[in-house]
Amino acid sequence: MSDVFKPANPDFDRVVCQSFAAQGLMVTLGARLQTVAAGRVVIEVPFTAGLSQQKGFFHGAVLGGIGDSAGGYAALTLLPAGSEVVSIEYKINFLKPAVGDVLRATGRVVRSGRSVSVCQIDIEAIASGKASLCGVMQASFMRVEG
Amino acid sequence: MSDVFKPANPDFDRVVCQSFAAQGLMVTLGARLQTVAAGRVVIEVPFTAGLSQQKGFFHGAVLGGIGDSAGGYAALTLLPAGSEVVSIEYKINFLKPAVGDVLRATGRVVRSGRSVSVCQIDIEAIASGKASLCGVMQASFMRVEG
Amino acid sequence: MSDVFKPANPDFDRVVCQSFAAQGLMVTLGARLQTVAAGRVVIEVPFTAGLSQQKGFFHGAVLGGIGDSAGGYAALTLLPAGSEVVSIEYKINFLKPAVGDVLRATGRVVRSGRSVSVCQIDIEAIASGKASLCGVMQASFMRVEG
Amino acid sequence: MSDVFKPANPDFDRVVCQSFAAQGLMVTLGARLQTVAAGRVVIEVPFTAGLSQQKGFFHGAVLGGIGDSAGGYAALTLLPAGSEVVSIEYKINFLKPAVGDVLRATGRVVRSGRSVSVCQIDIEAIASGKASLCGVMQASFMRVEG
Repeated sequence: MSDVFKPANPDFDRVVCQSFAAQGLMVTLGARLQTVAAGRVVIEVPFTAGLSQQKGFFHGAVLGGIGDSAGGYAALTLLPAGSEVVSIEYKINFLKPAVGDVLRATGRVVRSGRSVSVCQIDIEAIASGKASLCGVMQASFMRVEG
Repeated sequence: MSDVFKPANPDFDRVVCQSFAAQGLMVTLGARLQTVAAGRVVIEVPFTAGLSQQKGFFHGAVLGGIGDSAGGYAALTLLPAGSEVVSIEYKINFLKPAVGDVLRATGRVVRSGRSVSVCQIDIEAIASGKASLCGVMQASFMRVEG
Repeated sequence: MSDVFKPANPDFDRVVCQSFAAQGLMVTLGARLQTVAAGRVVIEVPFTAGLSQQKGFFHGAVLGGIGDSAGGYAALTLLPAGSEVVSIEYKINFLKPAVGDVLRATGRVVRSGRSVSVCQIDIEAIASGKASLCGVMQASFMRVEG
Repeated sequence: MSDVFKPANPDFDRVVCQSFAAQGLMVTLGARLQTVAAGRVVIEVPFTAGLSQQKGFFHGAVLGGIGDSAGGYAALTLLPAGSEVVSIEYKINFLKPAVGDVLRATGRVVRSGRSVSVCQIDIEAIASGKASLCGVMQASFMRVEG
């Protein structure tokens, strides 16, 4: 649905990149901002042993973490200059073990409201070039003045 | 409510500690298992810049991550020997910025079922010895044979 | 925690009762407002065949419906005169079949914010005078000017 | 994604219709089963004053109720003969007031597992023939032997 959105701030790309760069946890996780489009943001993180749960797969916290960020930044792309977003809440369903070389979160805006935005986020594990959906999220974000 | 629970496996403490120690992400986050009681588990993590969001507070992914683990391990304390748990889903509401020296997640079992357990988890930020509730979670876990 | 809350509007009881009375669905379900205290609201509904799912127990929609209302009205008790609340979202976990003569939802405010309030709601089925927890909810509500 | 699903029970349509007909609440709400396809179920309900919240729009419980049923029956279409589903949990985000003559819930299976199925459900309000997305849900269901 991202093609129907008209961003209120033409400079949204820079705003998202600056905020992402300020998140210490994204550095700790090794996460990279892959795509910043109007209403759609993609974040990826390569697998390392330091991101694992007890079976050696990606830990659920990594899914939740990059998913929350992908959703929040997708919401931010559509907001007026000077806006920031804070997470109100999110919910994640785990579909299967997150086994792969790379984890990818794709956040999409479902509803961009004046004060609350709602996003859905798909989380895929990519193994040998093949993507497999391993989590789905639904999240809401509040706009605040920066 | 944890005092009404009778653990099916007297060795539940060791089971939880072994599984926790195998989670690479808990090491990366610097998380520590503080309490393992029947139906109740506490996990703490000290603040470092590598755990921050863009404002310098604890990132939501840290809340979600130690909360998910505290809930899952609380569920595991009540299950028969040989059991493991996998997260079905969780939902987290953020109440206020997580500002503090330490973040603490307390997971409690609400319902321990044969196949599904439901937990509630409180997340507190501790600043100068004062705890402040900054997140609440509700999560479900599936029992699987180890 | 309701005893620590100081309501901003001394007339909160009347505000909640008027709004509840205007909900056609509460009449359809046969729901009754049992308690309206600062930060805490209880709603009950007696069982009828018209409220059942396919096994003859209370349908999940009845749990969700009175739970959402109990939470929203609990939030409303703490807001300034002239406020209304709209549901942002809720999540419900079903713990066991809701078998009983009466279903009771108890909503409690966890965090009363300027724009967003967060509540937890317990849903109990009461059979022969014995209450059994059959659902737990976590919900957020936005304050709007009435 | 429903076209990629192969139903395990060729008779899934009859199974869903029989279970739906046994839900007293669906009669009370005036809900109708519109579509039963492999992995996809649509339920509609016409507006009446008895389904309203305090502003005269569809009450959130109606959205949650037909959404939960649409998701559960979508999951059921893909399960082996003799299966039933019970709701583990669901989460609903409200996007805008549900104003219209008809409310429509479209449930789609995201993951059909041996024991747990995950669905996403869109809720639209239809006014003068125009559909508007007013709620999104994410839900999980457990398979049980009938």
